[in-house]
Amino acid sequence: MESENKHNWRTRLHEIIYEADTPAGKLFDVLLLVLILLSIVLVMLESVNSIDKKYHNILYFGEWVVTILFSIEYILRIISVKRPFKYIFSFFGIIDFLSTIPMYFTFLFGGTPALVTLRALRLLRVFRILKLARYLGASNQLKDSIIASRVKILVFLFAVMVSSIVFGTIMYLVEGAENGFTNIPKSVYWCIVTLTTVGFGDIAPKTPLGQFITTIIMILGYGIIAVPTGIVSAEYAKNANKSAKNEGQKELDHSHSTEIKEVHTNSQCCMNCLAEKHQDDAIYCHKCGCKLHHD
Amino acid sequence: MESENKHNWRTRLHEIIYEADTPAGKLFDVLLLVLILLSIVLVMLESVNSIDKKYHNILYFGEWVVTILFSIEYILRIISVKRPFKYIFSFFGIIDFLSTIPMYFTFLFGGTPALVTLRALRLLRVFRILKLARYLGASNQLKDSIIASRVKILVFLFAVMVSSIVFGTIMYLVEGAENGFTNIPKSVYWCIVTLTTVGFGDIAPKTPLGQFITTIIMILGYGIIAVPTGIVSAEYAKNANKSAKNEGQKELDHSHSTEIKEVHTNSQCCMNCLAEKHQDDAIYCHKCGCKLHHD
Amino acid sequence: MESENKHNWRTRLHEIIYEADTPAGKLFDVLLLVLILLSIVLVMLESVNSIDKKYHNILYFGEWVVTILFSIEYILRIISVKRPFKYIFSFFGIIDFLSTIPMYFTFLFGGTPALVTLRALRLLRVFRILKLARYLGASNQLKDSIIASRVKILVFLFAVMVSSIVFGTIMYLVEGAENGFTNIPKSVYWCIVTLTTVGFGDIAPKTPLGQFITTIIMILGYGIIAVPTGIVSAEYAKNANKSAKNEGQKELDHSHSTEIKEVHTNSQCCMNCLAEKHQDDAIYCHKCGCKLHHD
Amino acid sequence: MESENKHNWRTRLHEIIYEADTPAGKLFDVLLLVLILLSIVLVMLESVNSIDKKYHNILYFGEWVVTILFSIEYILRIISVKRPFKYIFSFFGIIDFLSTIPMYFTFLFGGTPALVTLRALRLLRVFRILKLARYLGASNQLKDSIIASRVKILVFLFAVMVSSIVFGTIMYLVEGAENGFTNIPKSVYWCIVTLTTVGFGDIAPKTPLGQFITTIIMILGYGIIAVPTGIVSAEYAKNANKSAKNEGQKELDHSHSTEIKEVHTNSQCCMNCLAEKHQDDAIYCHKCGCKLHHD
Repeated sequence: MESENKHNWRTRLHEIIYEADTPAGKLFDVLLLVLILLSIVLVMLESVNSIDKKYHNILYFGEWVVTILFSIEYILRIISVKRPFKYIFSFFGIIDFLSTIPMYFTFLFGGTPALVTLRALRLLRVFRILKLARYLGASNQLKDSIIASRVKILVFLFAVMVSSIVFGTIMYLVEGAENGFTNIPKSVYWCIVTLTTVGFGDIAPKTPLGQFITTIIMILGYGIIAVPTGIVSAEYAKNANKSAKNEGQKELDHSHSTEIKEVHTNSQCCMNCLAEKHQDDAIYCHKCGCKLHHD
Repeated sequence: MESENKHNWRTRLHEIIYEADTPAGKLFDVLLLVLILLSIVLVMLESVNSIDKKYHNILYFGEWVVTILFSIEYILRIISVKRPFKYIFSFFGIIDFLSTIPMYFTFLFGGTPALVTLRALRLLRVFRILKLARYLGASNQLKDSIIASRVKILVFLFAVMVSSIVFGTIMYLVEGAENGFTNIPKSVYWCIVTLTTVGFGDIAPKTPLGQFITTIIMILGYGIIAVPTGIVSAEYAKNANKSAKNEGQKELDHSHSTEIKEVHTNSQCCMNCLAEKHQDDAIYCHKCGCKLHHD
Repeated sequence: MESENKHNWRTRLHEIIYEADTPAGKLFDVLLLVLILLSIVLVMLESVNSIDKKYHNILYFGEWVVTILFSIEYILRIISVKRPFKYIFSFFGIIDFLSTIPMYFTFLFGGTPALVTLRALRLLRVFRILKLARYLGASNQLKDSIIASRVKILVFLFAVMVSSIVFGTIMYLVEGAENGFTNIPKSVYWCIVTLTTVGFGDIAPKTPLGQFITTIIMILGYGIIAVPTGIVSAEYAKNANKSAKNEGQKELDHSHSTEIKEVHTNSQCCMNCLAEKHQDDAIYCHKCGCKLHHD
Repeated sequence: MESENKHNWRTRLHEIIYEADTPAGKLFDVLLLVLILLSIVLVMLESVNSIDKKYHNILYFGEWVVTILFSIEYILRIISVKRPFKYIFSFFGIIDFLSTIPMYFTFLFGGTPALVTLRALRLLRVFRILKLARYLGASNQLKDSIIASRVKILVFLFAVMVSSIVFGTIMYLVEGAENGFTNIPKSVYWCIVTLTTVGFGDIAPKTPLGQFITTIIMILGYGIIAVPTGIVSAEYAKNANKSAKNEGQKELDHSHSTEIKEVHTNSQCCMNCLAEKHQDDAIYCHKCGCKLHHD
């Protein structure tokens, strides 16, 4: 009886922390998001010298609050999973640990600049938010468009790289070290800066021939900016057409693409193996066979 | 009899000032637009030292003309509404008041730089022009496209923010204060400058590693520039298809979307509660039930 | 008999100089294009100090050759038209005159820097080439797309202007003259530089608040870059669909849009009033009723 | 018998080196790609002074390894073709030779800076990879879109050039040499930098009039960035529609466009005349009639 209670309590905790289908689960995700953003703001403000001097104590206190809350969350995450080591050595498990440890480390051994690097790792926790973003159906369409035009984008990026290297070497030979093109890698970097129309201006061609070649690079960049846009636009338009057709067919049959969509919006997470993306009517985990919890 | 006359006079005034369906109402809107733009030009020219020295008296005189005309308009707006306080404490009521007051204030108490700020608020009155822009049916389609892809654009902006923070922190750690990346907020600012392909060049990476990461940021920015374009393009294409179909169906039935369009182009404005967006055949205000005026 | 011969000779000359349907007419247009481009190259090279010093005599000789050929062309243009004054006082007539006169002026009265300005006007003659470009059917579609989305583009430009003025004033108040934002017009200029993602970096925000507002401006600019692209893309896609349908219907009926296209590709030019855009089967000028010449 | 063996051996070698349909042929292409990229990395690293000082010997050794492997490849290419001179004097034949020779030249006569230029030519060998890229069907669609909108892109580029020259000359006259616009070619270069939204900032307008004209240039550039995007997007959407229709019709008939696609993905290369792009079921070369090898 007690064991069952404990099991229920752990199941509920798992539901709150790892999933987002219940109100409590959604609230937890939002609170965690706020806390992560707050911890990022703290790291940011500490890096500003003038603010750090004035409000050092407040920032230090805030950092401890964040650290303790992260610690509690970390412990709860370990407790609520059936196989804690699976979580601890997972990608997000390690990130969670490294986000929590720096303050304890500073307290015990004194602060080193390397710890700022560790604390910055907290930023990676923001990607948990992307799990939250899944509920915005839009991000699915966004991701689908990018995945569908994956190969085209790679071919495009490859073309950008090749032309950058070719033009970068030419510019290195034409302009030379005295005009800021000190070596080929730097020249290629400048070429990408120009091709993407960013144009910092820290390095700029000074010889007439160099400026003429730059003109060609820029117009080329201007022209090929159309390519990725065209790819994604066409992909989007196709998706829009498809979904318009699906809407029409909805009453007739449940098409494949609609089902996939539903699958993606389910936030179930197996308590045993932490597998995700279960179907809406799934009762057992599709990876380890462990029972999922339905109310 | 007199009361009715007065009522008619007030109704006409309301029609001229708040609406734009009658020729007089349209003329008033255009004149007001010209006056606002003129007042902005005055504020602009005054900020140029060399011009202010030469033509100070003319600018001062022009400012008084604008102030007096704004004052008259403000008083007329109060008179022509049934419930003046509703207008006075509305958003545009406060803006109108703050646009008019600075010169009187300067006259009574002497000028302070803070008053330039107040006068700059007149710029917000320009948004009244957007009410005028409604007549250009195009702006509706523009707005519809943006609203329809609202969620997608938010997801996109969120992705931009997250990647800016992640890359900004990395660049702060890689480049450091000695290369201009003095703190993380500044580093994030630089990252957005790069990602949006603006590239001021006030801060630029100097270490090879920093330049390599910059290359990744730029190509990423170049790639994702396609995303909002793709979204809006697809939305536009969809709207264009829809309106093409509607044109075909026009004789068969009055579709929902056509009616919505007509509603938006009506400039009726309730005299009692200042509610807008009435239907073309509406006789009473849809918010307070007060009678609208038809000729 | 002689009169008829002379008439024929004049008609032929008119055909060669003003039209481009005959081989001789096409050749004349191409030669003129080359000559204009050559004269531009001459003006360009003369502006480069080092080249002007070395090759002054060659450039001077070339300039005289261009001037004499332009003079001959100008006289032929006057001779071959029935009403010479109509040509002389037309837009291109004045441009042609001003392109030819500077060298004679320099020869008689000595050169002044103001004459460089006059010679630069030759560049406007390049727009005659656009008449040539009409034969590339593509430019029609390009122009059609731009014309079709004329209103939308204007609304968009208006929105860009308003937001530039609003943000420009805010930046002037936030950053102030000590950071380069010396007056509001300059601040608005900077704002457009940023919004269009050009980003020269001659002026750049230095206060944290200014950098924060800049971030908003940039993301806004990044977002609205999608709008004109979306407009033109949708317009293009619509045109492409239309022309695809037209191709299908071609045998069934001559649709309106196809005829318009054919009209645009005709280069007939009335000898009397210089009116253009005649229909393919037109025998008399649609403006003055004067007979057009067909072989 | 021996002759036939030799022939078989040469045929196989030709298949491996020039084609990519067999596993061995694909492997060879990938290895060559890696080697070319490696040789480019070597040229790059050598140009960095600090790295060259430290690891000069390793880089020198690596360069020799690359040179020897390139030499072997060059000899094999000559052996495996029926008419070696056809290959030697072909474009890629000359490039291959020039990529291989510099180290031997340096060894015999001592290094000169001009040899870096020769070694940089190796970069052109990367374009062999584009032959590899053909297998990624995507690049075909990319190329098709660009070819289909070839004329439109040329008209667009022409318009960009004309407006750059016109605005460049105006800016030269307005700003003058004292503000960095030292001559018209430089001014045109600056104009393209601005129009393409690159904006280095090495030259920037300083007079109010110059800044006003710059505003027009930038908004123009911002507007016309939509044009190439619109062109390619529409072209892509059309292709996508076509391929969607083709998929539907696949069982009914083999449409023309599908066959063209298949032709492009065939990597057969005639042993006699090095002609490419043979049809899948071709037995004899479509250029010289020499028999192609099928297994």
